[in-house]
Amino acid sequence: MTTIPVDRPRASVFIATSVDGFIARPDDGLDWLTGKPDDELTGEHDPDQDFGYGEFFASVDALLMGRGTFDVVSGFGGDWFYGDTPVYVWTSHPDDVAPKEGAVLRPVTGSLDDVVGRLVSDGIGHVYVDGGKVIRQFLAAGLIDRMTISTPPVLIGEGIPLFGGTGDDIRLELVSCETFDGGMVQRVYDVVR
Amino acid sequence: MTTIPVDRPRASVFIATSVDGFIARPDDGLDWLTGKPDDELTGEHDPDQDFGYGEFFASVDALLMGRGTFDVVSGFGGDWFYGDTPVYVWTSHPDDVAPKEGAVLRPVTGSLDDVVGRLVSDGIGHVYVDGGKVIRQFLAAGLIDRMTISTPPVLIGEGIPLFGGTGDDIRLELVSCETFDGGMVQRVYDVVR
Repeated sequence: MTTIPVDRPRASVFIATSVDGFIARPDDGLDWLTGKPDDELTGEHDPDQDFGYGEFFASVDALLMGRGTFDVVSGFGGDWFYGDTPVYVWTSHPDDVAPKEGAVLRPVTGSLDDVVGRLVSDGIGHVYVDGGKVIRQFLAAGLIDRMTISTPPVLIGEGIPLFGGTGDDIRLELVSCETFDGGMVQRVYDVVR
Repeated sequence: MTTIPVDRPRASVFIATSVDGFIARPDDGLDWLTGKPDDELTGEHDPDQDFGYGEFFASVDALLMGRGTFDVVSGFGGDWFYGDTPVYVWTSHPDDVAPKEGAVLRPVTGSLDDVVGRLVSDGIGHVYVDGGKVIRQFLAAGLIDRMTISTPPVLIGEGIPLFGGTGDDIRLELVSCETFDGGMVQRVYDVVR
């Protein structure tokens, strides 16, 4: 039984999946999404093709991700992706989260309640939840408010799933559905309570 | 190594998935899609809310499905769903496919090549491929031409997946993306060769 504060932060997901529902290849690869080899990924955006990411990112106070996602993001070349927006890294080994130049890292440990409590006590009003495992835990606990899911037109066959195992039915409301050149479909859903 | 005749039929998928990518609950249930208990499902369409199904169905010469999907469809109440359109049931036990009143059933057995060869020799020009397992086999073999995927705004948490395990990347082309009242999103993809 989780006891989430009533003043919990608004929580959003902004993520890409293949048509077959994967957020990355089995080795965490994102080339199917970016069209570039993973070792050439950088923090630079193409503002003409950011699919609303910049506007979304400007609306959040912090990110929350698991250790696995943090390690993937840390491996990207170029400048730190998230600027000076605080990044909470949820891990059972907080001492192992290595500092990263330019990043504001806040390792957090403990239960879902502990993590949400920490966000509340730090005054985070809108958190960007990232990584399949953390997203699923937040969904299952009824803590996600909005999901923006961008899907390029490709099946990758196997990989790391976004969904599955979230328990009972979760009703969504379609906020918008937009298509982009190249066949990307971006759906925005609010979670119905 | 499959040897598919060059005059193979055009093959299409027309299917619904939850936002988390399931085509049915673990017990084959479709209530999340239809809004009705499974024992009240019938072959009757609401022509105002058929999401293009009638037009699609009129374009096919036959259906192909596995034994599992056939058993589910056979369990629906009301008239036989597919009228006098031939239904090929792919099974290793063709003698076990029980006749169904009003249905034109053609049990087929053997390999993917055997099945496609049978469709060709029967003069099937456009086949509607149904059921997750058969769809995935056809996709992996490069035999699907078009997929229409309709997604109501719900996560069901667990169930029978549409995708996964189709091997190498399969590039798609977005033909159209339409939204309907109630938040259904219908994407139409062609497979790029």
